[in-house]
Amino acid sequence: MADQETQENPSPAVTSAAVKPKRVSHRGRSAGPKTSSNKEEGKIEEFEPFMLLPRGPPPLKDFLDIWDVDVLKSPQEENKRGHHTHLYSSDFLIVRRAQEFQIKITFDRPYKPTEDKFAVEFIMGSSPQYSKATYIPVFPNEERKSVWRGRIIETNDNVVTMGIIPSPECIVGKYMIYIGVVTPYGIRRTRRDPSKDVYILFNPWSQADAVFLDDEEEREECVMNELGIIYHGAHDDVSERAWNFGQFEYGVLDACLFILDKAEMPLSNRGDVVKVARVASAMLNSRDDYGVLVGNWSGDYMDGVPPTSWTGSVEILLDYINSKGTPVCYAQCWVYAAVFNTFLRCLGIPGRVVTNFFSAHDNDGNLKMDIILDENGKVDRDRTKDSIWNYHCWNECYMVRPDLPAGFGGWQVVDATPQETSDGMYRCGPASVAAIKHGQICFPFDAPFVFAEVNSDVVFYRRQKDGTLEPVRVNQTHVGRMVLTKAVLHDGRRDITSDYKFPEGTPEERQVLEKAEAFGCQREKSSIPDCDVDVEIPIVEVRVGDKFDLILRFNNRSDQQRTADVYISGTVVYYTGVPSSEIVYKTLKVKLEPQQSKEEKVSVRSEDYMHKLVEQGNINIITTGKVKQTGQIITAMKLIHTHKPKLIVKVTGSPRVSEEMYVTLEFTNPFQFNLENVDVRMEGSGILPFKHKHYSLIAPGTSITWTEAFSPRRAGSTKLMASLDCAALRYVYGEAELTVQH
Amino acid sequence: MADQETQENPSPAVTSAAVKPKRVSHRGRSAGPKTSSNKEEGKIEEFEPFMLLPRGPPPLKDFLDIWDVDVLKSPQEENKRGHHTHLYSSDFLIVRRAQEFQIKITFDRPYKPTEDKFAVEFIMGSSPQYSKATYIPVFPNEERKSVWRGRIIETNDNVVTMGIIPSPECIVGKYMIYIGVVTPYGIRRTRRDPSKDVYILFNPWSQADAVFLDDEEEREECVMNELGIIYHGAHDDVSERAWNFGQFEYGVLDACLFILDKAEMPLSNRGDVVKVARVASAMLNSRDDYGVLVGNWSGDYMDGVPPTSWTGSVEILLDYINSKGTPVCYAQCWVYAAVFNTFLRCLGIPGRVVTNFFSAHDNDGNLKMDIILDENGKVDRDRTKDSIWNYHCWNECYMVRPDLPAGFGGWQVVDATPQETSDGMYRCGPASVAAIKHGQICFPFDAPFVFAEVNSDVVFYRRQKDGTLEPVRVNQTHVGRMVLTKAVLHDGRRDITSDYKFPEGTPEERQVLEKAEAFGCQREKSSIPDCDVDVEIPIVEVRVGDKFDLILRFNNRSDQQRTADVYISGTVVYYTGVPSSEIVYKTLKVKLEPQQSKEEKVSVRSEDYMHKLVEQGNINIITTGKVKQTGQIITAMKLIHTHKPKLIVKVTGSPRVSEEMYVTLEFTNPFQFNLENVDVRMEGSGILPFKHKHYSLIAPGTSITWTEAFSPRRAGSTKLMASLDCAALRYVYGEAELTVQH
Repeated sequence: MADQETQENPSPAVTSAAVKPKRVSHRGRSAGPKTSSNKEEGKIEEFEPFMLLPRGPPPLKDFLDIWDVDVLKSPQEENKRGHHTHLYSSDFLIVRRAQEFQIKITFDRPYKPTEDKFAVEFIMGSSPQYSKATYIPVFPNEERKSVWRGRIIETNDNVVTMGIIPSPECIVGKYMIYIGVVTPYGIRRTRRDPSKDVYILFNPWSQADAVFLDDEEEREECVMNELGIIYHGAHDDVSERAWNFGQFEYGVLDACLFILDKAEMPLSNRGDVVKVARVASAMLNSRDDYGVLVGNWSGDYMDGVPPTSWTGSVEILLDYINSKGTPVCYAQCWVYAAVFNTFLRCLGIPGRVVTNFFSAHDNDGNLKMDIILDENGKVDRDRTKDSIWNYHCWNECYMVRPDLPAGFGGWQVVDATPQETSDGMYRCGPASVAAIKHGQICFPFDAPFVFAEVNSDVVFYRRQKDGTLEPVRVNQTHVGRMVLTKAVLHDGRRDITSDYKFPEGTPEERQVLEKAEAFGCQREKSSIPDCDVDVEIPIVEVRVGDKFDLILRFNNRSDQQRTADVYISGTVVYYTGVPSSEIVYKTLKVKLEPQQSKEEKVSVRSEDYMHKLVEQGNINIITTGKVKQTGQIITAMKLIHTHKPKLIVKVTGSPRVSEEMYVTLEFTNPFQFNLENVDVRMEGSGILPFKHKHYSLIAPGTSITWTEAFSPRRAGSTKLMASLDCAALRYVYGEAELTVQH
Repeated sequence: MADQETQENPSPAVTSAAVKPKRVSHRGRSAGPKTSSNKEEGKIEEFEPFMLLPRGPPPLKDFLDIWDVDVLKSPQEENKRGHHTHLYSSDFLIVRRAQEFQIKITFDRPYKPTEDKFAVEFIMGSSPQYSKATYIPVFPNEERKSVWRGRIIETNDNVVTMGIIPSPECIVGKYMIYIGVVTPYGIRRTRRDPSKDVYILFNPWSQADAVFLDDEEEREECVMNELGIIYHGAHDDVSERAWNFGQFEYGVLDACLFILDKAEMPLSNRGDVVKVARVASAMLNSRDDYGVLVGNWSGDYMDGVPPTSWTGSVEILLDYINSKGTPVCYAQCWVYAAVFNTFLRCLGIPGRVVTNFFSAHDNDGNLKMDIILDENGKVDRDRTKDSIWNYHCWNECYMVRPDLPAGFGGWQVVDATPQETSDGMYRCGPASVAAIKHGQICFPFDAPFVFAEVNSDVVFYRRQKDGTLEPVRVNQTHVGRMVLTKAVLHDGRRDITSDYKFPEGTPEERQVLEKAEAFGCQREKSSIPDCDVDVEIPIVEVRVGDKFDLILRFNNRSDQQRTADVYISGTVVYYTGVPSSEIVYKTLKVKLEPQQSKEEKVSVRSEDYMHKLVEQGNINIITTGKVKQTGQIITAMKLIHTHKPKLIVKVTGSPRVSEEMYVTLEFTNPFQFNLENVDVRMEGSGILPFKHKHYSLIAPGTSITWTEAFSPRRAGSTKLMASLDCAALRYVYGEAELTVQH
């Protein structure tokens, strides 16, 4: 700005700023460029003079000089072990906030505490500033004021071992390290050495950190575990599959920081876990912001990887960073949730993937999912637009919520799946799970939306000739039937429904719903007379391709005869509840004597549904009917989740670090038709990078076998997981566990 | 979906849906297309059969037929007068929610209430649904259940006058009207007649509506007034200018609804004023979503209209809709706020533009604006990055907040100015003003940001040689100095600072700040010793081009001698507080005897600043210094807002409706330099559409005169307003009031 200064201003012959920010066009709007990239680096002067100096090198020979800095970054060092970062496959030092780490500085002579003045400088971004916490000098003497604490642990000849504790609120990301020696002439600095950069992460082990999680087993699971299980299917017929989160794989941490850069998240916000989680929920999907994953639910994935085909997050995140931020094709909810989980765990935020069975969507935050029946009680599919997802996966992350009143910290819902039909909801959360449970949906972020996902009622309306709708039946238990996540440190399920809701029918549950209504959520509250005839459909487990019988169990609880016209409609549905083809349609006249129970059977043949299955092979059965004597409406819904053939994963060889072993995938086409354009993928956490193979045809009854050699990189118990995917058959998975010895 | 149905399904020979939604690709993801356009229309069948009919026309001759529908849309009719919509320049009926309006239906014979069945159908969008409130049948008999109430007011031969009350929550926008007669064979409908479409708006006059405002004068001002005043300048030297909101001008209502369509806001959300206001805050700026206005603060507006040149909202909104949604160039905060205000008032939401003097921005929601001084106490402009806007305009809109606990309804802050350096803040609010005042910033939306705008402290830091910063002075009163809005029904100012804050220094104020801190806002809390030397700069009113004297008034409150090195820096600043050129720089040695007061004078000549002025011609004076004896830091800040020459607006002729009159603009260049590429604009609310003229040169001392003829369109008191704008001179305005007689 020299041209702007008047002559009265002493000419600044030396630069007054050690750091010259890159100039961008922000004239008139802001006083400096945005600092929203962890990757960009400002130029740091090796000598930052305090005054106008005579020509020639400054007379610094009497002052301390630095010969070497060792950031003690080997995984065996206490820096990594003690900070639980030894598993990261990385060339850099990685530590956590609010916990001491050590560096060794070698001077040209012994350090004299009373005479020599130096500071370890941590610098981030293109325009580092002390007041924005992107420039942090740390002093060796504890009495010296500084945001991060420093101390000399040991002095040994010319070598000083210094302990440094980053502040518990410090920015999470990659810092440059310099050592600056203060001389009367200016600051003399070490030269830029990228190999000494340090990553500082969130610290669930430190009470001072906002992500502190006071349970070692939970931390081991939700921060340290690279392996996950994702639940899907139906609440009474749960399926599961393995996923490789791979948060410690080479390049993944850089990809996670790249996501924040791509979001242009200001560096100064990146110490705030609430903001980091919210930005990530927006950036994991490609809507608005060229985020990580493109959603596709159409069944046509020719120009990308089908959502069902991925076996882990690593391939996705590396694709994204290697393409400089080109969104990766394609995702559905579990892919968003799994990659988001990698992001969370990688940065040190405790995270887990949860599955909500029968999740209400697309209803604008109201507590009603509408099913429209015609005058006879038959579902009017053209007018029924709301869809209840068979299941929906989202994430929980653990943090305190200083922005909310006390009591709403702990697990928070975040969701990266774009809600395309909801108003601009291409980000969701963090929403406090405790707030959801207690109906306190007035607090940010997006709590009404999450509340509706687990609490909506299914309302059946009968449509009159004049176009009006009359509510005839309300099912208050269907939506949010069960919320599952993986158990801590073993492969079981953990039912966390009670984290989200009080038990159905309790006074607390009623109070919570009333509170949500007071906050503007609309519910159907017409008083609908109870029906004295019930129908239910017991669960039936079906292997894809098998014929099966649907049982309808009727029960007349009245003392009078009842007759009903009943419609049974079975529709192949996407997992989003969106119907594809109707495969069963039947009408029945049911006559029930007083207090009689009676079963009716509907047989479904393989040829009725096999050529119409889409995606995950779910069949939704809705039975509706009208009781002649009372006009009452009876309804039952059942989701049939067809079980897929298994992909067999076999491991041979002795599982020892660095010794060669083999994995073999085997699959036989059990169907009467060809499987075409089959994608097979496999990967193993810490043992086998992701591999992909394409088969153009697997004929009926024929088998494929694929063997790969691998050498485990580290000891411990791990998994190999594989998927097989083609348009006619998706959701075929297999896995094998193994324990690698040293 | 015929191809997806099995043979058991009875063939749908007649369409079961009267409305055929346009097919878009949403397969697998949602059960229907998005309905997020008020403009798209679904096809409505003129005859919607209930059953399979034999070939040939249905035998309807015995049933009621409709000959004519009259929606009574003349501005003289009670429909418009009673609904306060008579001022809209529109070809359509415009009414408000929760209030009865009338239509006249002419049948082919007298209506027989016991035999004939008909309904007035209100339909919106491409996929109308009863359960989404986009299909509303209204029945003539009140006992018939319907969401909107209907009744027969009068029957006169074949003509029935029907009263209709839209529900207080109904969607705001444009509805199609049909009359449907129910016959045993099906519904017979009137043909589509676009001239009978009806706009339904928010209703501040109805207690049942969420925007109810219980004060007729406030409603007259904040809903009905097309004229506004926008405050700018400095808190102790306030300037004002007129603005033509023009919410009733032809095409403006359509433009406002187009904005919601462009936002793809689901129709079913458009009855919710909280959501409408939030969507609009995002859509008024072009960031993310191709919204209405492109922000530009750079001083280079060659390829658009300079923000300072606009005189009203109408030109902007019509440009936007006529270009099918191409963002309009350019805006700064008051343009965003003024156009947003038009949007609010046009849709019936009480709205006003407010100006906050010294508005804190770009500080990530923390309560600190940092000014960095060097070791000697001089401002380090390279390191001072936070900017305090001289003023910032935003909007308030009035509504209940069912989504929040009780007590947070009333005025809400919404702000469409994109906060480029804040994290993804391209929308802001609604944030409850009451919540801001009480520090309850835990409620949505964006309350911490607004709180910081009015409550931040200015913190002066002294930077040490080693790069650390030491807080040396905190000014708690500078930011949010005054919040102004136009008075109700006259042209005075209304100071609403006390709506936002408790008085400085009260216990309530301290409690509020503590609460905000508890919610995570960072403040500087170091205890800084009081300084016994004060400096202040009294206000000086300066006409642009004049020389002036700055007075520095020093006061030594101690009983000892004090000496200080004082720096005076005067910098031309953008209104965003961003510095351009330094025009004054002086150092003083001040010596003060015990208890002495003393003035120092700094003279500023015209040539010191005239060629360096930018934009609004503000000069920011910062005085800092260090007391030798105590090391204490003294500071003072003063904004000098240079007054611009006036543009003279003269009206001649007698102001009567439809009679010709003349307006003349006069301007003389008072400067020693040429004014080049001068844009002059004028418009008059309800009397003169916006006009634009370009002068390539106005030489020193020369004058321009521009006369236009016009004929007032309606009676009442109104204004003509004009602007003159060129790169060397901005913010030149003029206006003339006139009262038009019938």
